[in-house]
Amino acid sequence: MTQVFNFSAGPAMISKPVLEKAQSELLNWLGQGTSVMEVSHRGKLFMEMITECDKDLRQLFNVPDNYKILFLQGGARGQFAAVPMNLIGAKGKALYLNSGHWSGMAAKEARNFCELDEISIVDKDENGVISVNRTDFSDIAEQYDYVHYCTNETITGVQIKEIPKVGNAVLVADMSSDIMSKPVDISKFGLIYAGAQKNLGPAGITLVIVREDLIGHACQATPSIWNYETQANSDSMINTPPTFAWYLCALVFKQMLAEGGLEIYAKRNEKKAALLYSYLEQSQFYRNYIAVANRSVMNVTFSTDNDELNAKFVAEAAEAGLQALKGHKVLGGMRASIYNAMPIEGVEALIAFMKKFEAENA
Amino acid sequence: MTQVFNFSAGPAMISKPVLEKAQSELLNWLGQGTSVMEVSHRGKLFMEMITECDKDLRQLFNVPDNYKILFLQGGARGQFAAVPMNLIGAKGKALYLNSGHWSGMAAKEARNFCELDEISIVDKDENGVISVNRTDFSDIAEQYDYVHYCTNETITGVQIKEIPKVGNAVLVADMSSDIMSKPVDISKFGLIYAGAQKNLGPAGITLVIVREDLIGHACQATPSIWNYETQANSDSMINTPPTFAWYLCALVFKQMLAEGGLEIYAKRNEKKAALLYSYLEQSQFYRNYIAVANRSVMNVTFSTDNDELNAKFVAEAAEAGLQALKGHKVLGGMRASIYNAMPIEGVEALIAFMKKFEAENA
Repeated sequence: MTQVFNFSAGPAMISKPVLEKAQSELLNWLGQGTSVMEVSHRGKLFMEMITECDKDLRQLFNVPDNYKILFLQGGARGQFAAVPMNLIGAKGKALYLNSGHWSGMAAKEARNFCELDEISIVDKDENGVISVNRTDFSDIAEQYDYVHYCTNETITGVQIKEIPKVGNAVLVADMSSDIMSKPVDISKFGLIYAGAQKNLGPAGITLVIVREDLIGHACQATPSIWNYETQANSDSMINTPPTFAWYLCALVFKQMLAEGGLEIYAKRNEKKAALLYSYLEQSQFYRNYIAVANRSVMNVTFSTDNDELNAKFVAEAAEAGLQALKGHKVLGGMRASIYNAMPIEGVEALIAFMKKFEAENA
Repeated sequence: MTQVFNFSAGPAMISKPVLEKAQSELLNWLGQGTSVMEVSHRGKLFMEMITECDKDLRQLFNVPDNYKILFLQGGARGQFAAVPMNLIGAKGKALYLNSGHWSGMAAKEARNFCELDEISIVDKDENGVISVNRTDFSDIAEQYDYVHYCTNETITGVQIKEIPKVGNAVLVADMSSDIMSKPVDISKFGLIYAGAQKNLGPAGITLVIVREDLIGHACQATPSIWNYETQANSDSMINTPPTFAWYLCALVFKQMLAEGGLEIYAKRNEKKAALLYSYLEQSQFYRNYIAVANRSVMNVTFSTDNDELNAKFVAEAAEAGLQALKGHKVLGGMRASIYNAMPIEGVEALIAFMKKFEAENA
């Protein structure tokens, strides 16, 4: 089989050693003669596995002791609803920072559950270049129960690299598409959430890291599977959790620790992105429309000036084993998602293909 | 490795050919060089897979054309909240039939989202035998937007074998623990839902079968991932679905069709349960406390008169390869869950062990 590199924005690549381990024990987990999918989540072995998963994640991501880690269902989209249900309190209002599609969707969903103000924090200049224009909200943030933003907009490839300033307000981040791509000072956040299907594991499980003092204030009309207090008191098991997805996340964390932790991943991710953006910068054929300061390390968007050429690029790349390079339908063009599991060889192969395609079509 | 039989109540056994198929293609799905976990849910191959899954399920479970099939996240517990959000309408009130733990939990959760009346429909006689005392609600049902019940109480092993009469009211069933164990006249229901982890596949995906005229009436405060209209209009993909769990369900349906469909499963399930209940009936050592008419074909509960003996039974059975026979903590004793994937050999092995244990301990 030809070497394949999968640039899917999510569900995305999973590290090969993790998949191989899962494959090898799929019918016989820990010598029990059953699949990890078939055992009770309340059984001794599964409980041991999730305890170790919590420990590994705390070590890897440097999660402070006063934060709870929850593994929930419903995706980031579920948290779009769950966050206001759990965090709206005395102030009765939240602030949403809009940096693109996903942060906008978060605000749209939240409007069904709370009052909110929404501020656009991106500009597009006369050449179509998008940049983030504001990250300091310390003058207004404390009027709100929380301030919500998205650290990395998967569709455009806009990443907010400095943590917004919000004074003593509670900062909430949707980190779905760049979580654990680098070390983060978690103490700056009240709550972090992320769908697993980019950097953590397969689709169907959602990580929530929440400061303990923010737990216990959910409104009555909070579905119990999303009530942070109920779930924190039940090891994220008030109902049957997505056990296989959780197990895979646990394997991913072990793999990341074995490879040396987030510093190593951060360096590798920076290197991959730098290779690709440097190539794009010097090209007259491909363009990226994100300001240098906000270029995503995870999702690199680019396009030619011609929709037909873009379609041809995507099709020929797929034939060459470079899969899923089509941009999101709301933006068009191309997008290379180069999450943690993408090796540098994948980026090198992509650049080689881009050069060849440019030579043939420019 | 010794032959193991896993009597877990859920997550439960998955058919071995399904697990073997998943294992064989875990790193290379359909020759793509990637795992099914790593590909976009909106990609051509995944879309083809779910289209076929819908078709297979319609054929297998005889789903009428005026019903939509949704695959959602959040488990049955999520639907405890989603059902009132979507179905409460002009009448402003629902009726919940309480036959044990899970139907009671459904009502408890629903109270956060709607007004409801709750009627206990089980009796316990002087010997502790539980029976269902009422299934005709046609005199009162039409006052309510819907009538909710649970077809099979997993903890006690109480199964309601005749469909409750509700006149022209909308009947909603939590079928989590007996779905697709036998053919069902779906036209009698407005909505059926089930967590997958007993008869359909792994934990982390929830099947909803809903009559089309009931779609489109969700209240505003319905999280979009549970809005039946939004999901029905988006192939259950308004956010990233749990792709691997969905894929496994699709494999289970194919396997069931290959084995001859639900009639075959129904006969096999009846035979397995009859073997076990006949043995329990003649025993002076083990007791089952469910009236004959309501004995579950899926979850067979039994116990000795002695808690220590029960614990010894569970431990020695596990050593003999008969796993997860401990009863739910709210009931104690033993429980053998014998879902679709449990072969008759598992039940025979259990009975042989029960005889041996009785001989040694009576």
